[in-house]
Amino acid sequence: MLQISNRGQAMPPSPIRKLVPYAEAAKRKGVHVYHLNIGQPDVETPPAILDAVRNADITVLEYSHSAGNESYRRKLVSYYKKVGIDVTPEEIIITTGGSEAIQFGFFTCLNPGDEVIIPEPYYANYNGFAVAAGVTVVPITSHIETGFALPPIADFEKVITPRTKAIVICNPNNPTGYLYSRAEMEALKTICLAHDLFLFSDEAYREFCYDGAYISALHLEGMDQNVVLMDTVSKRYSACGARLGAFVTKNKDVYATAMKFAQARLSPPGLAQILGEAAVDLPDSYFDAPKAEYQHRRDLLVGRLNAMDGVFCPNPGGAFYAIARLPIDDADRFCQWLLESFSNDGKTVMLAPATGFYGTPGLGRNEVRLAYVLNQDDLTAAMDCLEAALQAYPGRVDATAEARPAAL
Amino acid sequence: MLQISNRGQAMPPSPIRKLVPYAEAAKRKGVHVYHLNIGQPDVETPPAILDAVRNADITVLEYSHSAGNESYRRKLVSYYKKVGIDVTPEEIIITTGGSEAIQFGFFTCLNPGDEVIIPEPYYANYNGFAVAAGVTVVPITSHIETGFALPPIADFEKVITPRTKAIVICNPNNPTGYLYSRAEMEALKTICLAHDLFLFSDEAYREFCYDGAYISALHLEGMDQNVVLMDTVSKRYSACGARLGAFVTKNKDVYATAMKFAQARLSPPGLAQILGEAAVDLPDSYFDAPKAEYQHRRDLLVGRLNAMDGVFCPNPGGAFYAIARLPIDDADRFCQWLLESFSNDGKTVMLAPATGFYGTPGLGRNEVRLAYVLNQDDLTAAMDCLEAALQAYPGRVDATAEARPAAL
Repeated sequence: MLQISNRGQAMPPSPIRKLVPYAEAAKRKGVHVYHLNIGQPDVETPPAILDAVRNADITVLEYSHSAGNESYRRKLVSYYKKVGIDVTPEEIIITTGGSEAIQFGFFTCLNPGDEVIIPEPYYANYNGFAVAAGVTVVPITSHIETGFALPPIADFEKVITPRTKAIVICNPNNPTGYLYSRAEMEALKTICLAHDLFLFSDEAYREFCYDGAYISALHLEGMDQNVVLMDTVSKRYSACGARLGAFVTKNKDVYATAMKFAQARLSPPGLAQILGEAAVDLPDSYFDAPKAEYQHRRDLLVGRLNAMDGVFCPNPGGAFYAIARLPIDDADRFCQWLLESFSNDGKTVMLAPATGFYGTPGLGRNEVRLAYVLNQDDLTAAMDCLEAALQAYPGRVDATAEARPAAL
Repeated sequence: MLQISNRGQAMPPSPIRKLVPYAEAAKRKGVHVYHLNIGQPDVETPPAILDAVRNADITVLEYSHSAGNESYRRKLVSYYKKVGIDVTPEEIIITTGGSEAIQFGFFTCLNPGDEVIIPEPYYANYNGFAVAAGVTVVPITSHIETGFALPPIADFEKVITPRTKAIVICNPNNPTGYLYSRAEMEALKTICLAHDLFLFSDEAYREFCYDGAYISALHLEGMDQNVVLMDTVSKRYSACGARLGAFVTKNKDVYATAMKFAQARLSPPGLAQILGEAAVDLPDSYFDAPKAEYQHRRDLLVGRLNAMDGVFCPNPGGAFYAIARLPIDDADRFCQWLLESFSNDGKTVMLAPATGFYGTPGLGRNEVRLAYVLNQDDLTAAMDCLEAALQAYPGRVDATAEARPAAL
């Protein structure tokens, strides 16, 4: 009998996309669906970077260097310098999205059976890359009451075993929006140095920090050998479809090994590299407008959520996500009900149940992630839908009786 | 101590690229290097498909569907129909180059410790994908005397174990240029059905068949559950840098599982998909010119090689590669010497030692792979270099004393 591999069977389906058939059914019924479920912003891709592709003089669209075009890596050096990160072109591998940078990190640094600690809730696709690499994700819980701050050092120490090889963080965080403080980053450094752990730092959202300073893992002194930075232009320039990222490390062995994985797949996307190179030439002021827009949206979203009866949403310091606790029995059921059985003036809203972002079964059952990727009018309309839905939902529970996260 | 993973250490460096520093040194000395070492054609990328990207109306460069844009998959259905392959859009996943299609196949169908049989010499990057997936490549030798025909069924039977899960072929073949006949494809079918093996078929070069008919693995009746086709636009439209491929299977479990890996990395490159979609609209006559050009080059190359004293090069039926046996002591040493110590009128030639394409240690030591990716004038000049080099090479061996492949 032909059989699927064990890891293929263990591979989790996307928790974000599992509601898609219900959304499609709603649309077929004529219901308008506001998509707050995925991190696909409506912000315009800067026309100048698309023009760079349009105007590129290409006769033969050749393989690039496996590490990416040297001209692009040189440009990125100047980009990183602006955000306080000092690297050389020989410390950067251009990747196919941030996704490939994560894969390179896992395959280069981790053996099957190794463990990586990830504060939960976390970006769900880390699970997929871990399964592909045969690695075990060990979640430690961050809590909505603290705004999803980094769990205390003691929580890390408790789960460290001889198989623990790395910690993965996303900063600012997807799905919580939490922005790690200098003190929290220093705490991570202490743990990593004490236990010889790699620190995989996913910094896809660094341009969008609203309260407090962005501290990169590569800002931490003495961590050069431990840090692998995973980066992408997807959110920075609203160019998710380009599939252009970067793997950055000052650890020469890690770099040389990741390059072997990079050589096996030949080169990163060529047209996207033209776009990425042009993006570095955008004026620094480019980020002002999208950042201000996201901040307005955050304020609107968080304000509206906390004004709803029984809803609690901590104020996220960065990225464009928030996690809210709702007065509901079950987030998966509620999100499906929103699409299947609810509409408000012919409109409804699609949310991501937070359960998919927790590694610990049972957590997040009364939480949802909202991506504030729609303009303020649409966001307002989406909040109107949610407010009405929470009144109408048959599975609404009394706020005082609501389940608290098991670990509290 | 922070350590690289075992698979990272086991990951082979690219055998094609290891001579690059010597080529760079030669160029710094002012020597012109003819690159017959890599499959990067000089054929122009069709301007119409680049124009499609230039003219695309993009406001937000969004994630596409994880399986690729439906519009592109629909187009590909019509492309495949023209080459006698009957598939639906729901049997295609658009990938980041053929490389990602190979990865999806290995991760979806193979467990760590499983074995895949590959006729050698074979595309060296299969080794890298096998290491990443924890899979063992079991080579069976094809021989230059038969033009690298498929080894006899008995050779397959001899190495099949309970861990054998798949056979990988590349047709027409890289690095040998061999085009499998109907009888050989039927033989593969017999083995796969008898032993419940997947057949991974890399058909990157299908447009370039010069002698005999192209038989796709998906032309084989009764093999729907076994075949995974790995495809790419890289060579078809001379668009290697686009990084656009396809994973095609009629096995629904394999497809559904590969989709989970596809979802984890979100989507394939967006700009390239525009190019790929436009490529399907090129007139059927588009292939006439590049195919005729490659055939002229093949004839020139093979004619020149076989006219050299002590050289033997079988005539390849497809792709744009040939493997030649040279009167030399050691292909790695010879190829390095060509770059380090030889020039003919200020020119030299870069070849790929065939050793990197054999899984069995010691094979291919007097063989090189030549990619006929340069125009006929350059190819002639490159052959002049090689002819002169073989006269001058200190490690030249008498043709009658040359080492025969160990397995003969």
